[in-house]
Amino acid sequence: MIKIAIDAMGGDFAPKEQIEGAMWAVREIPDIELTLYGDKALIMPFLTDDTRITIVQSDGVIEMGEKDPIRAIRSNRKSSMAMSLSSVRNGDNDAIVSSGATQALIAGAHILVGRMKSMKRTAIAPVLPTVNHEPMILLDCGANLEIKPEFMLQQATFATVYAKEILGIKNPQVGLINIGTEPGKGRVLDQEVGALFEKDPHINFYGNVEPKQVLEPPCHILISDGFTANIVMKTIEGTAKGMGKILKEEMAKGILGKLGLILSIKNLKRFKNRMSPEVIGGAMIYGLQGVVIKAQGSSKALGFYHAIKQAAYVVRQDVVNKVAHIIESEGE
Amino acid sequence: MIKIAIDAMGGDFAPKEQIEGAMWAVREIPDIELTLYGDKALIMPFLTDDTRITIVQSDGVIEMGEKDPIRAIRSNRKSSMAMSLSSVRNGDNDAIVSSGATQALIAGAHILVGRMKSMKRTAIAPVLPTVNHEPMILLDCGANLEIKPEFMLQQATFATVYAKEILGIKNPQVGLINIGTEPGKGRVLDQEVGALFEKDPHINFYGNVEPKQVLEPPCHILISDGFTANIVMKTIEGTAKGMGKILKEEMAKGILGKLGLILSIKNLKRFKNRMSPEVIGGAMIYGLQGVVIKAQGSSKALGFYHAIKQAAYVVRQDVVNKVAHIIESEGE
Repeated sequence: MIKIAIDAMGGDFAPKEQIEGAMWAVREIPDIELTLYGDKALIMPFLTDDTRITIVQSDGVIEMGEKDPIRAIRSNRKSSMAMSLSSVRNGDNDAIVSSGATQALIAGAHILVGRMKSMKRTAIAPVLPTVNHEPMILLDCGANLEIKPEFMLQQATFATVYAKEILGIKNPQVGLINIGTEPGKGRVLDQEVGALFEKDPHINFYGNVEPKQVLEPPCHILISDGFTANIVMKTIEGTAKGMGKILKEEMAKGILGKLGLILSIKNLKRFKNRMSPEVIGGAMIYGLQGVVIKAQGSSKALGFYHAIKQAAYVVRQDVVNKVAHIIESEGE
Repeated sequence: MIKIAIDAMGGDFAPKEQIEGAMWAVREIPDIELTLYGDKALIMPFLTDDTRITIVQSDGVIEMGEKDPIRAIRSNRKSSMAMSLSSVRNGDNDAIVSSGATQALIAGAHILVGRMKSMKRTAIAPVLPTVNHEPMILLDCGANLEIKPEFMLQQATFATVYAKEILGIKNPQVGLINIGTEPGKGRVLDQEVGALFEKDPHINFYGNVEPKQVLEPPCHILISDGFTANIVMKTIEGTAKGMGKILKEEMAKGILGKLGLILSIKNLKRFKNRMSPEVIGGAMIYGLQGVVIKAQGSSKALGFYHAIKQAAYVVRQDVVNKVAHIIESEGE
């Protein structure tokens, strides 16, 4: 059995959607057992089926807008997030899924789960939808704002293993996010990273990729420092949201237009779903001594279910040990 | 009369669209005179009306994918881009508009037009469409990849004058692109810029803005270093393009859907136009001893016409001198 800790209290719609997602996961995935960390009194009304689900009482929640995430974790060891993270460290669980505040989860994972010895920096790596239906890994979406090329190489190595083992891509290519495609473009960091990636045997380096291609990438993994990739992710989100609004506004104009809109509702809904993160699951935090999956803060049951499924998959494929093996061999 | 130099040979659809845009501008704007720099033999077939338009023969074109822009400019002084830039320096023209290669235009502007003495770094600043129909200035879109906070302050000051004089915004607010909204977020650079902007009397600092809001910004100017803002611009472009493809794919599904699509064609076209850069005009290069407007490389006549209109406006409002006045007073 794969044992997964669920932070039942983190997220915009917690605990309802988290609990529904958990029950959904148990129904669909036969080899998992879940432990919900949270407030029993708030959980019980939604837990209509406790098959392979245990509740552990927690005390307190890490707020979404937490300004000092390290202190928040340190001073709330009994919070649902802290307890579920600790349960991975002490071996009670193999993985943890949380929709809680990203920075607090990253900080908490460092303090309570611990970093892989061989990997010098963590990374947060969501999987994004693309035009051609192939998933794409974007990293680092905010764990390390400023970083050295050799640490980015470790992150790219992790993403490569993840893409192979979890996404089933045979020979995943890594692209470096840059302002031009020619080698040598970009900041000093980008130039150094390009040169380093070029000669590394464990990754398949595609070269520089401009974010003009961000939804139709020529590779499976897009990497940059934690500031830039986070900016890319948030710009995609902002553009998608803004364009959705403009589309809605323009489509409703005129009588023929209104009729067209009604006839197109089903197709438009499918369009919206294709851009939605719900079917993608969560973002894995790379570089920890355990499996930590960050589900979207706005996760509904479907999104949370997918994040649990992803956690189970990562445990089953033994991704963390496979990465450790490669990175340790590199260090030799 | 406002005299504007036109680089007739730069751009994906040059010289045809550039010439049509030029004739359009002369028809609409009574106080301009244009000089087209280019190959007479290629220009003449498209120039059906030469009212207030002169041609100056050039020799050679700076290619769009030019890898060494500085050398390209230095070794092609008779190219349409170099000649039109030089014409501003020697006083033959008040402004220049080009759809040519961005990096070559920036390099050429430095070499042939020259930097404003008081402004330490240039910036390239397009005006983008937003959901609420208000224009937004994004900078620096690629002139200086790595930059100091005090130079970004000069750029923000320039953008503020531009927003007031050209966009007619009374008290334009400046937002700093960042990964979180709280003060102190981001890299060391962002923290220093935030602190500096906060206390400057010449700009109205809004604070940090996450690009989740990039099409619905809470301010009129969004600023970051030349790498980050360029990444934001290209991510908007990539997301819009990708979403457009997904929309097209999904809308055409099913018989009712196809009918809905036909009825919605007009509205969808308007949707597409609202996201198009054609109506916005060009990006001004801030910080030069003259007015240099970069029109999109893919400009058609409409887009190029708007870029010429913008150039005339910037000359008429005397933006460069107004900025110089403020920045020089700051230096005291």
